[in-house]
Amino acid sequence: LKHFERDCERLSRELFTIGGLVEEATAGAVRALVERRRELAEQVIQGDRVIDSREVELEEHCLKVLALHRPVAIDLRFILAVLKVNNDLERMGDQAVNIAERALALVDQPPLALVLDMAAMAAQVQQMVRKSLNALVQHDVTEARQVRRLDDEIDELNRRLYVVVRDLVLETPTAIERALSILSVSRNLERIADLATNIAEDVIFLVEGEVVRHRRGD
Amino acid sequence: LKHFERDCERLSRELFTIGGLVEEATAGAVRALVERRRELAEQVIQGDRVIDSREVELEEHCLKVLALHRPVAIDLRFILAVLKVNNDLERMGDQAVNIAERALALVDQPPLALVLDMAAMAAQVQQMVRKSLNALVQHDVTEARQVRRLDDEIDELNRRLYVVVRDLVLETPTAIERALSILSVSRNLERIADLATNIAEDVIFLVEGEVVRHRRGD
Repeated sequence: LKHFERDCERLSRELFTIGGLVEEATAGAVRALVERRRELAEQVIQGDRVIDSREVELEEHCLKVLALHRPVAIDLRFILAVLKVNNDLERMGDQAVNIAERALALVDQPPLALVLDMAAMAAQVQQMVRKSLNALVQHDVTEARQVRRLDDEIDELNRRLYVVVRDLVLETPTAIERALSILSVSRNLERIADLATNIAEDVIFLVEGEVVRHRRGD
Repeated sequence: LKHFERDCERLSRELFTIGGLVEEATAGAVRALVERRRELAEQVIQGDRVIDSREVELEEHCLKVLALHRPVAIDLRFILAVLKVNNDLERMGDQAVNIAERALALVDQPPLALVLDMAAMAAQVQQMVRKSLNALVQHDVTEARQVRRLDDEIDELNRRLYVVVRDLVLETPTAIERALSILSVSRNLERIADLATNIAEDVIFLVEGEVVRHRRGD
């Protein structure tokens, strides 16, 4: 039993490491966009390989723990949650890469004031990622529920941005490509927020056995 | 051992049922868009509840099989793959709902010829979903690799669509909202294709132990 707990702690640590890399990638990609820094965008794109290989490693470690201890009930559910969250983190990393690619495309074009909204949104999304991992490892349902609330705010930010972008294009049609790039970034951030929300909902399920993920009319 | 095989067959059947529902939802949402049929779009949105509850059920069944048989090696990997694919299918269902919502928004607006491209794209995406599930249940790597090739074509279709939409907005700025809706639909279809590709890549991993999912610079 002791062994199993020690192994779980190691898996949790690995998950936090990957989560940290994902947060860094998200922050870096958005900073590259706002500060128009090509080299920072390229760094994020390169760095995704590290996230990818960490994901593969952690998956192998989970399989080993499953094969070795053959856990049941809550212990089994925890390992399965780690596997799922691991996969979600990797997908978040891909979204950060998408943002970095948009940042690269926008470096050569005249700046749009709109990018500033992305910085605020990114800060909130990062907070959601961190909180969702904390909630998982601490089995903290209160923190998990906070993540779901923050996700509603992100959706609202996105809706407002849509209106701003639409009005910009109606006024200045030639800004269409830049406008689409910004919308794409906001959608990438929304996807990261959704994945963090998935994690939070898995935590609630893990702890309370209550399926909340299909409650909202998402 | 016999028991385990029989249980696996049942899980596969359940997975195919959900896959069928997802295909139907995707086809229905795009048909609602092309044929401007409000009631069909609403049907897809309602129907997502069925997909959601089937997903929860299948997850429970997988957990029971894990707890009962405590499989190892390839058997363990298969059950874990079913869990992951189950989750991916549910996410595809959410994308179909997004398309149906776009279809509803577009019903009241003047039609765009662009929607016809969505029908062709949807047909290909459906084929990818079916092939990826077949590949999983048959452990068929050849079919899995076909899915990856089809995904490259979807990405290409999307790139071409982007250019068409951009030119449309430059010419007719007031079409911006409809144009954004179409782009959003094409992105939803691309997401379904990506999820089918994830499944195909998991099959290759399951059968050959080879990690292909991070091979492409995606």
